[in-house]
Amino acid sequence: MLVGKKWYRSVWFSKGKIYLIDQRKLPFKFEIFVAKNYKDVVYAIKEMVVRGASAISATAAYGIAQAEIQGNLNKAAKLIKNARPTARDLGYGVEYMLSFIKNKKGEKDFKEELIKEANKYADSIVEKCKKIGEYGKKLIKNNAKIMTHCNAGWLASVDWGTVTSSIYMSKREGKKIFVYVSETRPRLQGAMLTAWELANEKIEHKIICDSASAFFMKDVDFIIVGADRVARNGDVANKIGTLEKAIIAKEYGIPFYVATSLNSFDYNCKTGKEIPIEFRKEDEVLFVRGKRIADKRCKALNPAFDITPAKYIKGIITEYGIFKPTELKDVWKMHYG
Amino acid sequence: MLVGKKWYRSVWFSKGKIYLIDQRKLPFKFEIFVAKNYKDVVYAIKEMVVRGASAISATAAYGIAQAEIQGNLNKAAKLIKNARPTARDLGYGVEYMLSFIKNKKGEKDFKEELIKEANKYADSIVEKCKKIGEYGKKLIKNNAKIMTHCNAGWLASVDWGTVTSSIYMSKREGKKIFVYVSETRPRLQGAMLTAWELANEKIEHKIICDSASAFFMKDVDFIIVGADRVARNGDVANKIGTLEKAIIAKEYGIPFYVATSLNSFDYNCKTGKEIPIEFRKEDEVLFVRGKRIADKRCKALNPAFDITPAKYIKGIITEYGIFKPTELKDVWKMHYG
Repeated sequence: MLVGKKWYRSVWFSKGKIYLIDQRKLPFKFEIFVAKNYKDVVYAIKEMVVRGASAISATAAYGIAQAEIQGNLNKAAKLIKNARPTARDLGYGVEYMLSFIKNKKGEKDFKEELIKEANKYADSIVEKCKKIGEYGKKLIKNNAKIMTHCNAGWLASVDWGTVTSSIYMSKREGKKIFVYVSETRPRLQGAMLTAWELANEKIEHKIICDSASAFFMKDVDFIIVGADRVARNGDVANKIGTLEKAIIAKEYGIPFYVATSLNSFDYNCKTGKEIPIEFRKEDEVLFVRGKRIADKRCKALNPAFDITPAKYIKGIITEYGIFKPTELKDVWKMHYG
Repeated sequence: MLVGKKWYRSVWFSKGKIYLIDQRKLPFKFEIFVAKNYKDVVYAIKEMVVRGASAISATAAYGIAQAEIQGNLNKAAKLIKNARPTARDLGYGVEYMLSFIKNKKGEKDFKEELIKEANKYADSIVEKCKKIGEYGKKLIKNNAKIMTHCNAGWLASVDWGTVTSSIYMSKREGKKIFVYVSETRPRLQGAMLTAWELANEKIEHKIICDSASAFFMKDVDFIIVGADRVARNGDVANKIGTLEKAIIAKEYGIPFYVATSLNSFDYNCKTGKEIPIEFRKEDEVLFVRGKRIADKRCKALNPAFDITPAKYIKGIITEYGIFKPTELKDVWKMHYG
């Protein structure tokens, strides 16, 4: 998307290096992080230079291609795949590239084809986001009020985003939209990233504290969030705080939607209980932008994700259409044939 | 309560001046703010040098006494009463002292009696907190796990606190207790004040982001929060984020309690809809400890309180006992005779 006067993806590859918009620095500085090898890639994923399930996945795909060219494939594949546990897409991107390498290694122009394949994978994420946007925008009326949590924007998804694609498309079609942006403690991806994206696109919005979502929820047409992993029964892992909004939305009768590509779907997880939840270091809670917010004697707990049971979800917006969690078996059929 | 090796109240009066533990500086600095006149008092309440419904109320009572002595009563009473809109106690403290002045002005030793009366009012808050603690501690078993939001501790209530009194008493009786402290954005009174209080009392606790309360809620025996105003039907105004926890608690079947003295009860408010909600300046959301957390183009909304409907509340713990919201008419009778 447009940043100032230039178009960007959040992740791209050029001449052997992986380029990432440094999401730790936004919205205060727009800087590009360059990953020269698999160690840089693992660092970037772990430390959240790049975050968002699809953007991580594209980074991982490029990382695998880069490692294969540099002769570090086995070590790199293991470390990259395990850099973060909760999102399904990361594994998906790694497996996609490993499968290509297994089938094509030794063929003519293999290295060029490898990079082409990684680019194809990143392109496919963008195409899926656009399709999700086409389906999602049908939910958005003129003067719509929407609430979102965390960032399932273009930064998180190479381009367009899963949640934001429908908003950006609707805006381009002339619709007026207002977005309540839940700040998303501890790392504030809502306040820092989503609000920055919306400001770039000149979409009207206000940041609210996570704890104010019940206060404002009756004012919105629907809630829409991304997903890091979708279990077979429709349970969804997403940023901590998603579950709260889903429960409140159910209580208030406000539709709660999840926008995500099938790259987040995990047929091997029967229910959300099988999805591993990442606990990150407590300092993410105890410090905000380098400033301590609690006494030195006090500790914190920092789960990065929660599981929203399928029963709270009105629909999952995918590249194949919008499905109720109870209809997911149809999606599995489309996907696996 | 004990701070280091010295006992403190959060508010006290000495030789014409009002002393306040500066709650803006905690937990990083322990400083005392001195209010020399009604202008200082209004500043301290508005800027949250002192916060917490009962502590504000005691400050207001001392402020009225001070203003009467300094000859500024009418102006001071109006400004102090309107310094913050949501909590009932503030008006209660002002009315209490105005009534005393009306009845006793001109009598022998009036000025001394006036100060005694303000001290009596502050003492009565502490006594009520102790009674609330006596009732509340019956809910706390050994090895109890409790979740709270914001700070309804001794800082907020002159001494002992409404929520914390039962915890401190149980601890002194040898019970082991663990408290999940919800950080309470935007001003972080949970992380900054409640966690500091619990650390002082050596009570085991962890700070969590507000958005993680659903994640941890199934692990607790009950939720307990304070109140800024209780309507006639049992609806409760309290810190933004209270409503969310109450809805989730109901969904999960976890008991949700409110601990507050009758000073917060407002017979004139039929329901929570009549309670005025204070919106504070957006910079409280957009800055954390002086550091900006969003792009300069982005704005925020900052409601300081929300209304929790009576149907989500299992019991209100008062100085007269624990009541269901449906039993409040009995409390009104006790209070008004």
